Amino acid sequence: MFSCVGFAASSSDTPLHPFSFERRETGPADVRIDIRYCGVCHSDLHQARNEWGGTVYPCVPGHEIVGTVAEIGSDVSRFKVGDLVGVGCMVDSCRQCASCKDGLEQFCEEGLVGTYNGQDRHGRGNTLGGYSGAIVVDQDFVLKVPENLDLAAVAPLLCAGITTWSPLRHWKVGPGQRVGIVGLGGLGHMGVKFARAFGAEVVLFTTSASKVEDGLRLGAHEVVLSKDPEAMAKERGRFDFILDAVAANHDINAYLELLKRDGTLVQVGAPEAPMPVSVFSLIMKRRNFSGSLIGGIAETQEMLDFCGEKGITSDIEMIPMDQIETAYERMLRSDVKYRFVIDMKTLPASV
Amino acid sequence: MFSCVGFAASSSDTPLHPFSFERRETGPADVRIDIRYCGVCHSDLHQARNEWGGTVYPCVPGHEIVGTVAEIGSDVSRFKVGDLVGVGCMVDSCRQCASCKDGLEQFCEEGLVGTYNGQDRHGRGNTLGGYSGAIVVDQDFVLKVPENLDLAAVAPLLCAGITTWSPLRHWKVGPGQRVGIVGLGGLGHMGVKFARAFGAEVVLFTTSASKVEDGLRLGAHEVVLSKDPEAMAKERGRFDFILDAVAANHDINAYLELLKRDGTLVQVGAPEAPMPVSVFSLIMKRRNFSGSLIGGIAETQEMLDFCGEKGITSDIEMIPMDQIETAYERMLRSDVKYRFVIDMKTLPASV
Repeated sequence: MFSCVGFAASSSDTPLHPFSFERRETGPADVRIDIRYCGVCHSDLHQARNEWGGTVYPCVPGHEIVGTVAEIGSDVSRFKVGDLVGVGCMVDSCRQCASCKDGLEQFCEEGLVGTYNGQDRHGRGNTLGGYSGAIVVDQDFVLKVPENLDLAAVAPLLCAGITTWSPLRHWKVGPGQRVGIVGLGGLGHMGVKFARAFGAEVVLFTTSASKVEDGLRLGAHEVVLSKDPEAMAKERGRFDFILDAVAANHDINAYLELLKRDGTLVQVGAPEAPMPVSVFSLIMKRRNFSGSLIGGIAETQEMLDFCGEKGITSDIEMIPMDQIETAYERMLRSDVKYRFVIDMKTLPASV
Repeated sequence: MFSCVGFAASSSDTPLHPFSFERRETGPADVRIDIRYCGVCHSDLHQARNEWGGTVYPCVPGHEIVGTVAEIGSDVSRFKVGDLVGVGCMVDSCRQCASCKDGLEQFCEEGLVGTYNGQDRHGRGNTLGGYSGAIVVDQDFVLKVPENLDLAAVAPLLCAGITTWSPLRHWKVGPGQRVGIVGLGGLGHMGVKFARAFGAEVVLFTTSASKVEDGLRLGAHEVVLSKDPEAMAKERGRFDFILDAVAANHDINAYLELLKRDGTLVQVGAPEAPMPVSVFSLIMKRRNFSGSLIGGIAETQEMLDFCGEKGITSDIEMIPMDQIETAYERMLRSDVKYRFVIDMKTLPASV
């Protein structure tokens, strides 16, 4: 075991604070990573504050991890010391079930092992995440990061990126399709970039007039203000696919109505309250309402490789570790363009 | 024009009564049909009583029509006098839009022309349906009925049959799949028969212990009582496809949870109230919640041909025309196995 410094929540109602803990030694199949940057996902805040229930304390959040390989196990051949690597929302799974064998470890029948607040399969209890100086991860859950990209801006690809990439790929979004992205936040801004890169005609839906210009800059062909009933009415029945990245409760029927016959709306934001669906909206055009969860390891690597080729990263704002609570408060106000990333150089050397 | 006798509702709160009206003469592309039987669909009751709004009176319901060709127009080549034919929920559409060109006239962009309470494209106002002695329909919306089947028991195939056939075919239900049918009524009993005929493992979900035996007789491999929480818990994550034929308000999440990863639940019953959907249920297994509406003309013909080959019809109870109100009341109590069919010989000769 080795000692590691991070930031942890000790309870649901106290601020994150410096925290020292132990990680396992690098096993034969492991990669030890010196973490350089970690993205700040809304789930971090939910779990630090136990808003979904089930948080085990101390909780070290963080699942948008990029860094450098510091050590490899004896069986590791795909990585070498010094490689740039990433770790996303999972660090393990059963590897035996149909979903794992299909490369969709996020749907593991036994449950994926979350990068934090997950049940470690190495017998070390609760997993601790990326708001820390280092992490040890099985090589099968470590991603190669292209050398040509801004490393800090790669971090959010590991969650916000793959969460939007996976449904756009699974439902085969591409040229000739009119595609809607609902909400311009951490997820939505990646949805706009990817849908545009895949050749679709991209329409961003946002509640904020202040985001119109940014939407166009990020790649949307059009931006529709969703609070404008006339503008929404004009879009009825015009979309092949809609990716809804809004986590707040909202009227899903307003977007289902925008789909063509056989169109699909995929929800990736996860509102807490059940969403009332008008069944007529589905029946009258044979529409589909679906969900999607991050993505498998193989497709996450495909995404990173694609981003390397196309020069795609997230739009980020860098923060020092001790500003995390301020960042959470700003995130709650959607006051970030479009993802906070923590610079791990700012961690204290010891606690 | 020629004079025709039927049964009509004159207002939302008066019983159906004998009614005399005029139909158009047989045009060049038309088929005039002597109606022999007409199935009784729940929509007939909804619209006779204006429960969906928009009913134009007098209203002659009926869209599960079978009969004999009495006359053909000069351009009609596919039918001859004496042929057994059927007419379902549509008698026309725009024929120009993408959906019509795809053979999915039920999704016509201009709106299908309903067999009753639709807007006639021949300038004759509101369409009048199958609770009548004869009907004139454009040949493109007339179906051939296999000679080897019990004609009365074919009638419900034109709505209840195609409404379940179409989604089972569209989502490619077949051997190796575990398929759930929710609700054993007019639609559900056809869903069970078709899913079984397609080679799937069929599980019927019903609230009534009294329907278990019938479910097995109709083709289900298993019947699950949906009010039994333990029985439902055992089925979680086990289904490739579920067809939900329940029109009453019910908890859709209980069925979404039964789907495997990438499974699809298609709603064909149409509850009036929006259905609250737990988004986590969709996200955690990438499940799909969809709808489906009757079926196109070409697929309705495919269904009838298949039924002819396999000897499939509906289970029916025959009634005379003047018992329609009693039939409606029994239908409201689900007291029918599984579809009422009106014998048109029982119509009065004149009004």
